[in-house]
Amino acid sequence: MSETPVAFVLGSDTDWPMVESAVKLMDDLGIGFEVEVFSPHRTPERLHDYGSNLEARGFKVVIAASGGAAHLAGVLAALTALPVIGVPVPSTSLSGVDALYSIVQMPAGVPVATVGIGSAGPKNAVVFALKILGVDNPDYRARVHEYKENLVAESEQKAERVRVDWEEKS
Amino acid sequence: MSETPVAFVLGSDTDWPMVESAVKLMDDLGIGFEVEVFSPHRTPERLHDYGSNLEARGFKVVIAASGGAAHLAGVLAALTALPVIGVPVPSTSLSGVDALYSIVQMPAGVPVATVGIGSAGPKNAVVFALKILGVDNPDYRARVHEYKENLVAESEQKAERVRVDWEEKS
Amino acid sequence: MSETPVAFVLGSDTDWPMVESAVKLMDDLGIGFEVEVFSPHRTPERLHDYGSNLEARGFKVVIAASGGAAHLAGVLAALTALPVIGVPVPSTSLSGVDALYSIVQMPAGVPVATVGIGSAGPKNAVVFALKILGVDNPDYRARVHEYKENLVAESEQKAERVRVDWEEKS
Amino acid sequence: MSETPVAFVLGSDTDWPMVESAVKLMDDLGIGFEVEVFSPHRTPERLHDYGSNLEARGFKVVIAASGGAAHLAGVLAALTALPVIGVPVPSTSLSGVDALYSIVQMPAGVPVATVGIGSAGPKNAVVFALKILGVDNPDYRARVHEYKENLVAESEQKAERVRVDWEEKS
Amino acid sequence: MSETPVAFVLGSDTDWPMVESAVKLMDDLGIGFEVEVFSPHRTPERLHDYGSNLEARGFKVVIAASGGAAHLAGVLAALTALPVIGVPVPSTSLSGVDALYSIVQMPAGVPVATVGIGSAGPKNAVVFALKILGVDNPDYRARVHEYKENLVAESEQKAERVRVDWEEKS
Amino acid sequence: MSETPVAFVLGSDTDWPMVESAVKLMDDLGIGFEVEVFSPHRTPERLHDYGSNLEARGFKVVIAASGGAAHLAGVLAALTALPVIGVPVPSTSLSGVDALYSIVQMPAGVPVATVGIGSAGPKNAVVFALKILGVDNPDYRARVHEYKENLVAESEQKAERVRVDWEEKS
Amino acid sequence: MSETPVAFVLGSDTDWPMVESAVKLMDDLGIGFEVEVFSPHRTPERLHDYGSNLEARGFKVVIAASGGAAHLAGVLAALTALPVIGVPVPSTSLSGVDALYSIVQMPAGVPVATVGIGSAGPKNAVVFALKILGVDNPDYRARVHEYKENLVAESEQKAERVRVDWEEKS
Amino acid sequence: MSETPVAFVLGSDTDWPMVESAVKLMDDLGIGFEVEVFSPHRTPERLHDYGSNLEARGFKVVIAASGGAAHLAGVLAALTALPVIGVPVPSTSLSGVDALYSIVQMPAGVPVATVGIGSAGPKNAVVFALKILGVDNPDYRARVHEYKENLVAESEQKAERVRVDWEEKS
Repeated sequence: MSETPVAFVLGSDTDWPMVESAVKLMDDLGIGFEVEVFSPHRTPERLHDYGSNLEARGFKVVIAASGGAAHLAGVLAALTALPVIGVPVPSTSLSGVDALYSIVQMPAGVPVATVGIGSAGPKNAVVFALKILGVDNPDYRARVHEYKENLVAESEQKAERVRVDWEEKS
Repeated sequence: MSETPVAFVLGSDTDWPMVESAVKLMDDLGIGFEVEVFSPHRTPERLHDYGSNLEARGFKVVIAASGGAAHLAGVLAALTALPVIGVPVPSTSLSGVDALYSIVQMPAGVPVATVGIGSAGPKNAVVFALKILGVDNPDYRARVHEYKENLVAESEQKAERVRVDWEEKS
Repeated sequence: MSETPVAFVLGSDTDWPMVESAVKLMDDLGIGFEVEVFSPHRTPERLHDYGSNLEARGFKVVIAASGGAAHLAGVLAALTALPVIGVPVPSTSLSGVDALYSIVQMPAGVPVATVGIGSAGPKNAVVFALKILGVDNPDYRARVHEYKENLVAESEQKAERVRVDWEEKS
Repeated sequence: MSETPVAFVLGSDTDWPMVESAVKLMDDLGIGFEVEVFSPHRTPERLHDYGSNLEARGFKVVIAASGGAAHLAGVLAALTALPVIGVPVPSTSLSGVDALYSIVQMPAGVPVATVGIGSAGPKNAVVFALKILGVDNPDYRARVHEYKENLVAESEQKAERVRVDWEEKS
Repeated sequence: MSETPVAFVLGSDTDWPMVESAVKLMDDLGIGFEVEVFSPHRTPERLHDYGSNLEARGFKVVIAASGGAAHLAGVLAALTALPVIGVPVPSTSLSGVDALYSIVQMPAGVPVATVGIGSAGPKNAVVFALKILGVDNPDYRARVHEYKENLVAESEQKAERVRVDWEEKS
Repeated sequence: MSETPVAFVLGSDTDWPMVESAVKLMDDLGIGFEVEVFSPHRTPERLHDYGSNLEARGFKVVIAASGGAAHLAGVLAALTALPVIGVPVPSTSLSGVDALYSIVQMPAGVPVATVGIGSAGPKNAVVFALKILGVDNPDYRARVHEYKENLVAESEQKAERVRVDWEEKS
Repeated sequence: MSETPVAFVLGSDTDWPMVESAVKLMDDLGIGFEVEVFSPHRTPERLHDYGSNLEARGFKVVIAASGGAAHLAGVLAALTALPVIGVPVPSTSLSGVDALYSIVQMPAGVPVATVGIGSAGPKNAVVFALKILGVDNPDYRARVHEYKENLVAESEQKAERVRVDWEEKS
Repeated sequence: MSETPVAFVLGSDTDWPMVESAVKLMDDLGIGFEVEVFSPHRTPERLHDYGSNLEARGFKVVIAASGGAAHLAGVLAALTALPVIGVPVPSTSLSGVDALYSIVQMPAGVPVATVGIGSAGPKNAVVFALKILGVDNPDYRARVHEYKENLVAESEQKAERVRVDWEEKS
């Protein structure tokens, strides 16, 4: 199986703090990846080359996070046959609605799969990438199941804490 | 390869006219699929059973289209390890923004990959499903490339028609 | 009369600080209740069981608070014949508009009674639950009247304070 | 049991076509009701009298539908201890968002239970009123169950029609 | 001329900090006024009496400031023949858009003259009240002219400060 | 009393159909007025002259209706000491929200009194102008009262018609 | 002077009807131009080549019109040193707000000059292009003045027609 | 070439901190300019004179930054044949959407070229002014190219820093 199936691309270095914990999650899940920063507007040539070679380099899924007029994911989706997951970053005063619309409202034929704005979005992009990798690969599929089970356990522990907190106070 | 890798689910029969041409595209692309209608609010039991068995029945990708408080995709994403693509249908007076938010703003750990509102959305869900199927399957990958080439050719023809239209008028 | 007529459900432990004072109000009003945390997306099975048994367990009203793609109230409304009050929590960068739309825009036949976003919402859910309980029960009805009278008295005191504040300054 | 438990109030005669089928549903469900039109802005005196006497006249639930700066439900909720359900009517160019905000964003202590904008809203107000009436009354509770069962049956028939429609075309 | 031509009404004591400097401006402009706090939802009876007597008590203009489902101005406009100026207070997570819509979208026949959200709004309500008082009263008209001249002078001083600031830095 | 106290200004001839019935209402109410069309962007010189002379020409109130980047009311408010009422016209695809924000969000010191978007707005501007004229003029004040009484009578007739309509159908 | 200073680019043939009259205006103003259709997502290679050569081919200004996730203008702005004017086309159910945000919210360093949504936008892009061409070219500058004078004359005629229309009716 | 080709105008001294770094950039790029503050609403006469003389004084491009009901750019565009770039400042609780709509939605014939809300906007206005100046002037054109090259270099350095940061942490 591909050593680095995921290309995780940022539109700007200022998006890095917003996605860093998602990149850490990718590491924890044992998904090979590379992180790159390409501005579709400042370094279009390099992004064009990068996007055009993703498939040949053996990547399987692309995650693209950006804010404002967030063209990164759409530009990559235009250049590669690989599935591209778009992550809207709330980096302007419009709370990420600008990025959401710029990413999700793609024309017919060139989809970007969009996840939510804010802290949940980048993590969900990673989990969705894992789900994609698990479609035909039993090892990745097993990790999806494991991740879901951990999520259940973690949720139950957190729920328990609320109950305890309330009982202590009342 | 799985005969019917895609489950295409609608939240209501009223969504059918909005997605019918996308279902036709799926047929044209040679992707096996089944179409089902399950309201997460009117028939929750049946949806629960359906969603819990999708993986065991051999599906690989789920497409869920609904409008308003569009919970369908999220409910399915909670029940299956398969990737779920959510399609917001503009069926209320809020132009599909309600459906978009209900689908895309999922909590961390349970992603729904969301496509655009309106006529482009359902088609893009199908193309994205094809891209997912093509991740580890050369046959589907080839169809992605073929689809992209057709898209280019079709776009160029349409562009040519605009030029001709203008020349005739001027 | 039922000892614990109200089930107060949260979609996530992170919603707890937002609703804690409302739960305290419920206690002060002498309404029996239980507090639970069930993620409709992370622990769908448990929520399904919980929601399906609410009526049999003797509850009369359900309050469901959640943020983002806030499906909790809708999922519960689909599972129970009891009235469900939905509380949109402003937990994402969209200021709770995402939660509001996800909760209020339910399809015909499966209503969720929605209250406001933010600090007023959870309290109003509790007061509305009390109003529901008071429909056929004179004791609860009396508490509604008492609550309204206190509200008037409290409002008048606060109004008086503004007048005093202004007079002191001018 | 009260012969006419529901007061269904409209803010304007122009809202009538939007809610007429919901009033018909109330009739079909065997819920006694009266329909009144009171503008909170044009006939405030009469609305004040009406709202202040609802409880004494034996009503149990109030439904209030209005558009624009939709103050009707809030004014009624201020005047009565009964639960008030607010229905935002999309009667201005703002698609009902103005009415939704005017109805749902009530201050702490005076809740209005809000349902969705558009055609689903008025019907859901009726179903929610039925759910409220069913809280302590087995007869109404039975009608809630019956309504839910019919909804399931109807949904399944509609779903079947989509499947047939697709099969005929493909 | 009336000693206290302006009634300045707040919907809640929590709105006081937002409007305090505007009340101070009214004082500085030599406009007689009274400040009152009446919640249209918590103390509807008292507001009803207050609004119905404004004209008889000799007031000429009413200013009403409130947030959320901001019904105060509309309720007063329904009760009095006096012009009512509505001030939307951004007191919820919706940034005052809820209050703006609740105030400005009044039905035909019952206008509320609405000013902007935030710090400019309350001051502009006062200046607009002064403009109304100046329509038939030369003394108030003169104060409008004086206020405008001060505004010009103040603006020019501020503009000068920007120029100086830039010159010092460059 | 001034023969033509109201200047009713439109930003474009395309706004005329939207305000025509309001102008008719002004006529019916016996308010003297003139109607002018001045684009603040296309004919700024003429608007500047017009606005600067409104007070000298004896007008008392200005109504300004425009759509899109609706600067007309603000420009007039800057030029005259008279009260200016702004009417947002929904003439673009943004449903009048653009015009509403452009009119209502004026800076501190230069108020525009804004009425609602759509058909109610222009009429309410006229009624508000009448209320302003009635502040110090008993004749106009009497017409406000008369108008309000007619509104009540008309509302009650319309309400009666709904009741009759329902009774005939049920 | 350059024979064809303006490149007018559309993102899709479906945008053509929306911009056709603007292209006609360009013709009437005697501005040389070429019209092209390049989808940034369907034909990215060709757009890349086209954008990279605009300067070398002697163009001076670029106009780019597109809807939805409207990346066209931004992609061109990234590829050329020429000023790019972006025209948001309201081609989805979001009324052009999606296109507006995608075009205007460009990152620092890569501006797109954005004009309004809808019918005024494309024309204004042409007029703005003329203004740019007129910066250093007296001939184009003269045409700007001439256009402005025509606009004034035309506005006055339209204003006159409203006056006449009203006089005939009253 | 004109010594001071750019007039940079602010609507209020409170906008100064938001645009100061952009003015600094203009200085660094060697573009001659003057900075002025003119409120279109507080000092309309002076703005009218200023705008009417911009062309005669030899300016080539105008940048106008303002917030709220941001009429400044539109008023200037109406007065001058020069291209006007509008900068929406997020100075109210509406996050700059009010300013954006007030600036971008200009009527046909009087364009304002609008840049983004927030910190990127003012800088992009400066870069766009440089691009306009470069249309017919090789010296300015060279500076555009130089600026673009610096942007690329700077972007690559920032991208490198993200990669290093991640490597150090992992």
